[in-house]
Amino acid sequence: MSTTFHGALSPVLTPFDDDGAPSAERLVRHCRALLNDDVGLAVFGTNSEANSMSVAEKRVLLDALIDAGLPAARMMPGTGACALPDTIELTRHAVTRGCGGVLMLPPFYYKGVSDEGLFRAFASVIEAVGDARLKVYLYHIPPVAQVPLSLALIERLLKAYPGTVAGIKDSSGDWNNTSAVIDAFASTGFEVFAGSETFLLRTLEAGGAGCITATGNVNAAAIARLAREWPSADAVAQQRRLDEVRAVFQRFPMIAAMKAAIAWQSGDEGWANLRPPLVELGAGQRAQLESALDAIGFRMPHAAQLALRTEAAH
Amino acid sequence: MSTTFHGALSPVLTPFDDDGAPSAERLVRHCRALLNDDVGLAVFGTNSEANSMSVAEKRVLLDALIDAGLPAARMMPGTGACALPDTIELTRHAVTRGCGGVLMLPPFYYKGVSDEGLFRAFASVIEAVGDARLKVYLYHIPPVAQVPLSLALIERLLKAYPGTVAGIKDSSGDWNNTSAVIDAFASTGFEVFAGSETFLLRTLEAGGAGCITATGNVNAAAIARLAREWPSADAVAQQRRLDEVRAVFQRFPMIAAMKAAIAWQSGDEGWANLRPPLVELGAGQRAQLESALDAIGFRMPHAAQLALRTEAAH
Repeated sequence: MSTTFHGALSPVLTPFDDDGAPSAERLVRHCRALLNDDVGLAVFGTNSEANSMSVAEKRVLLDALIDAGLPAARMMPGTGACALPDTIELTRHAVTRGCGGVLMLPPFYYKGVSDEGLFRAFASVIEAVGDARLKVYLYHIPPVAQVPLSLALIERLLKAYPGTVAGIKDSSGDWNNTSAVIDAFASTGFEVFAGSETFLLRTLEAGGAGCITATGNVNAAAIARLAREWPSADAVAQQRRLDEVRAVFQRFPMIAAMKAAIAWQSGDEGWANLRPPLVELGAGQRAQLESALDAIGFRMPHAAQLALRTEAAH
Repeated sequence: MSTTFHGALSPVLTPFDDDGAPSAERLVRHCRALLNDDVGLAVFGTNSEANSMSVAEKRVLLDALIDAGLPAARMMPGTGACALPDTIELTRHAVTRGCGGVLMLPPFYYKGVSDEGLFRAFASVIEAVGDARLKVYLYHIPPVAQVPLSLALIERLLKAYPGTVAGIKDSSGDWNNTSAVIDAFASTGFEVFAGSETFLLRTLEAGGAGCITATGNVNAAAIARLAREWPSADAVAQQRRLDEVRAVFQRFPMIAAMKAAIAWQSGDEGWANLRPPLVELGAGQRAQLESALDAIGFRMPHAAQLALRTEAAH
């Protein structure tokens, strides 16, 4: 099984222009900075506002990243949608463009669906794409999708599609579940990623592959460092500092807060935009966020590179 | 404000061929039967598996219905998706084709979103479509979408877009909410549809417009009759019979059960198909459903017309 993905990935924030269109230029710049920090590109995740974009918009963005020279092997685009034809189209495109894997939500409109129905959904996509290069990472995020992926479902998928069903992102926020998935399947090469760096050290110690985490967008280098160095003596201290930074962002709506932080530290106000139904932080929240980040001495190392205007300035 | 819609509408079941593709031929036939029974066409609703279809598939089906000569004025296609570009595309298409209205889910991936974010979402669609013919019916279905529409949001939308925001389908299953919406807005012409015929008589008595109900697919004539005749002496008895029929279907997964009933009574087994993540009834469930419908003497009047093979047979 492929080991292209390891350590830390980030569901990359999607920048939007003032007119609401995705900003490919900002996205390329941001992805390059993440890769420089050794963070892989889980573009089109929950924190990317991916489900607020059409399949066509996502195809254009993925092409922009790859055409800019960024390595598709380090990309794990989210491709799961409510409608199987949408999931199939984007998954096929990702495979064709050489992406190392795809992160696949189950269809999430209907709630309380059966494992049989979910199995058929994933199987339909895998069969329709029909490409040996396809690596599917299952996306378990019951707090948002409200459609959990059971251990029995994972087992059935692994048995039916070994080598294709490659891993999982567990965003349940429930360590017992992550631990159970690792215990059940990691020994076969199934790559288990925690859904946040809160569980990074525990996941690595238990035999998991790493984490795919929102705050990778703002704290990339430190998260990737722990993922690389975790057996080191100061791993617990590193984890504690990651938790301290995350705690600040968690006091606000996370996506808006991360975008506000990037807008602030890069000086590119365009970064603050979100697409409805999400909204940007208000001025009061922005001030609170900035002073809270100042109070813990937090700076994004690559902030200056994210400013569109730095092209001219530097 | 338009009064095109009144009485009973049905979120029309979407038939799928054995290969998983939507079956336009069966859909046209079914929609014609519903209109013959005075039931309006809320195609692409929850019970239509609409979110399991791509925008392109829905455009094709809508075109097939209209090109078959069915009146677009009686159609209220569901157009709300997670991604605003998808909602805009399908809404624009529906307006261009002359549909009497559209039924619009809020973006439903993110949970716990603000009224401000939802307002921006609906406003973005209305502004982008930018057509005076557009009539938006809001779709409140918290048990499935998990994104409720508050009274304050409805009020703000009505104030901002009078004449465009035309009504609501309340599928909360909470009569207190339906009643509150009627009390607050019906007097201005805002059309309030209950999300099931369970509340049909109460909705009409309270000043609502009718119901948009799943079981309209199988019990169309009787539901439409109560909607027309409701001040009549036997209205309560009519309501009781509607409840009796619905209760049978509710003992099973509803969409699968309605499709199974149509497959059984029409003799067209193709009707039993669902698209993942939903699954058809098992053989045991089918037998239970059929005997339960027999036990209450229930027959679909137009069942024979729904069989593709009747074309040749009759």
